[in-house]
Amino acid sequence: MNIFKLSDFSLMSIEEILKLAAEYKNSERNLNFNYGKTACNLFFEPSTRTHYSFDMAEKKLRLNVINFDSASSSLKKGESLYDTVKTFEMLGVDVVIIRATENEYYNKLVPSIKIPIINAGDGTGNHPSQSLLDLYTIKEEFGHFEGLNIIVVGDILHSRVAHSNIEVMERLGMNVFVSGPEEFREEGYNFKELDEFIPKADIVMLLRVQNERLETKMNISIEDYHKNYGLNLKRVNNMKEKSIIMHPAPFNRGVEIADEVVECPKSRIFKQIQNGVFVRMAMLDIALSK
Amino acid sequence: MNIFKLSDFSLMSIEEILKLAAEYKNSERNLNFNYGKTACNLFFEPSTRTHYSFDMAEKKLRLNVINFDSASSSLKKGESLYDTVKTFEMLGVDVVIIRATENEYYNKLVPSIKIPIINAGDGTGNHPSQSLLDLYTIKEEFGHFEGLNIIVVGDILHSRVAHSNIEVMERLGMNVFVSGPEEFREEGYNFKELDEFIPKADIVMLLRVQNERLETKMNISIEDYHKNYGLNLKRVNNMKEKSIIMHPAPFNRGVEIADEVVECPKSRIFKQIQNGVFVRMAMLDIALSK
Amino acid sequence: MNIFKLSDFSLMSIEEILKLAAEYKNSERNLNFNYGKTACNLFFEPSTRTHYSFDMAEKKLRLNVINFDSASSSLKKGESLYDTVKTFEMLGVDVVIIRATENEYYNKLVPSIKIPIINAGDGTGNHPSQSLLDLYTIKEEFGHFEGLNIIVVGDILHSRVAHSNIEVMERLGMNVFVSGPEEFREEGYNFKELDEFIPKADIVMLLRVQNERLETKMNISIEDYHKNYGLNLKRVNNMKEKSIIMHPAPFNRGVEIADEVVECPKSRIFKQIQNGVFVRMAMLDIALSK
Repeated sequence: MNIFKLSDFSLMSIEEILKLAAEYKNSERNLNFNYGKTACNLFFEPSTRTHYSFDMAEKKLRLNVINFDSASSSLKKGESLYDTVKTFEMLGVDVVIIRATENEYYNKLVPSIKIPIINAGDGTGNHPSQSLLDLYTIKEEFGHFEGLNIIVVGDILHSRVAHSNIEVMERLGMNVFVSGPEEFREEGYNFKELDEFIPKADIVMLLRVQNERLETKMNISIEDYHKNYGLNLKRVNNMKEKSIIMHPAPFNRGVEIADEVVECPKSRIFKQIQNGVFVRMAMLDIALSK
Repeated sequence: MNIFKLSDFSLMSIEEILKLAAEYKNSERNLNFNYGKTACNLFFEPSTRTHYSFDMAEKKLRLNVINFDSASSSLKKGESLYDTVKTFEMLGVDVVIIRATENEYYNKLVPSIKIPIINAGDGTGNHPSQSLLDLYTIKEEFGHFEGLNIIVVGDILHSRVAHSNIEVMERLGMNVFVSGPEEFREEGYNFKELDEFIPKADIVMLLRVQNERLETKMNISIEDYHKNYGLNLKRVNNMKEKSIIMHPAPFNRGVEIADEVVECPKSRIFKQIQNGVFVRMAMLDIALSK
Repeated sequence: MNIFKLSDFSLMSIEEILKLAAEYKNSERNLNFNYGKTACNLFFEPSTRTHYSFDMAEKKLRLNVINFDSASSSLKKGESLYDTVKTFEMLGVDVVIIRATENEYYNKLVPSIKIPIINAGDGTGNHPSQSLLDLYTIKEEFGHFEGLNIIVVGDILHSRVAHSNIEVMERLGMNVFVSGPEEFREEGYNFKELDEFIPKADIVMLLRVQNERLETKMNISIEDYHKNYGLNLKRVNNMKEKSIIMHPAPFNRGVEIADEVVECPKSRIFKQIQNGVFVRMAMLDIALSK
């Protein structure tokens, strides 16, 4: 079964994946289920967290793992994505995990590719494993989604994570708001002033700031961004007692988040990374089983 | 046991390797035979298919796999091939698979290297695993070699695959012909006009065209090459009923092969990739056993 | 348990690691002890021997292995060493092996990192796995350390290996001397003329010469270095009957060591590489157990 984007999945299917991830986290699943099968990670963009998180998930599932190094491959000789993926299918790979720069690259692959494909991020499109680990972390914290207030802070316009997250969170009954500099805003989203909304938020979800874009394209200094939109201790102290901080990482200390906030008690940033492995184990399990 | 080139092997030994590969393909072999042993892939040239095919074969055989990344190694500090291979022998590697740019590099390694070496391609010399997977695919298709007509189309002069393939195919009793632009021809081979020979061929084996060489060195446009020597549907329709198309890949769609021919019913191109894994499992088995 | 530098370890602890390594070499240890655990190699500098030796040690111990490719990672986006290591901890890695350019980088990681760290070399600081494999090789040869004469030849000033080795060798009761061009000498070490001392040495330990530094910074030609400090057959013939030659590798044939000396009967250079795997298995075992 392919996993391209969460908007293809019913709420029931999403809850099922989260339940399966919880079973992996609680060591309630048989890890030898897919013994002898092989996963292939095809990453055409650099990525620490997503790549190594899938790598770890695959190894915990006792899968053989092939990490495709796009830098030293025949792609240099001009081979297409389809021909590369078809090659790995014919080599006997059982599931392929792809990160690519082109939006909806997977439309070129179906239906000729017969092995399951997991989308690990397509351009400015979707990033379902990140969305699922965000949802998992929220569910683990609050036990439900309905009625939670979340504010997403940063570059909404260019964020792969933001768009797909907001879609599924609204479907799950969360109240989603956004904040950030005018240049990063996008129509159709519910804007709030950060400092006004912080006392009402259950979740403050920060997005990574791309320093280069900020300073050269937007003419906003890092200091100004940090002052106006960075999550510092003063802002954290205005948050509700049971509220949490999230960030997909990698984060810029001193830009969108103050150094001392990264591991403060409200932060779930490293817990998100931890949960990501179990969510990806669940995704691999489902992709290989169905 | 070392595997450097097929001309070192008797026809009986070659048939034995093909038989072993068939047993792996039919899941008739014990995969835990070499449990705990380690294979090391030393690739000093980029290669998707050969490298990952060996990688997959090793993983299917439950071997530990070390993939040597020549880009971030002490080779940069000027270490010789011999010292690198000797190092891996001392690290406890049980079999080493080498792709290198120098022809017959392996002569520098024997007899001081005590672990088996499998040649995964030496410069313009030999590429025995490719030849064996070609032979396997032919045998699987026709059940025999004797009397089959094959025409090899393309850059005979610079092709590692062509030379070693032709030698062994002639030994096996096949009738081998070549075609392609004058600039690519080589003395001692039996030239035929492609369009004249196509109706008689059991196998049309295409070679990869290097676009750069074609246009800059040979002054042949891609369009002209495709028109005169590219395998298009019209030519395919002139082929015999039971004939097949082969290509070592990666292929250039629209150059030596038309887009719609790559996966047409006569094409065995992706089947060759599939068979390559089983052939390499057989090679590893023999290298480790004898 | 962390392993940063040997000066943190008592002589008793060092002997314990060497004993454990011997048990691994003699196949007296259970290799499935850590089945399902994961080791992560974080190498921020190129290294063939150390990296692949840990890789092999981990695979022999049946650990899952993650090799972090620093070239295609989020480090490019400016992530700190701490955030990278913390990420791998949260991904579920059980032990991390780090090579980095900064001296004592590990001080930034403790106590926040909760998984064991093995230092695989920090700048010009320490390289405990190299020191331990040197000690192992000496102990295997002579059965003891007390009273052995060792002369370390080469660039003492810039050698990571030399400093930490000399400290622990003196603690073990060895008589440590140094030799080499004036520009490479360092105060506090016992200098000897090479040719005068060679007949008294139990161990001649060569250091790698960095050709670039030698010729451009020191104005010493390779020929002069080889003539004055290179270990050639004539010097080897002046060595004691039971003496040995060591080198951490990679070595420069024709610079600090003559081609024909590399594998002469007195050389333990490739044996050092072999022993390195067992020593690293012992280090991983201890790091994971305590």
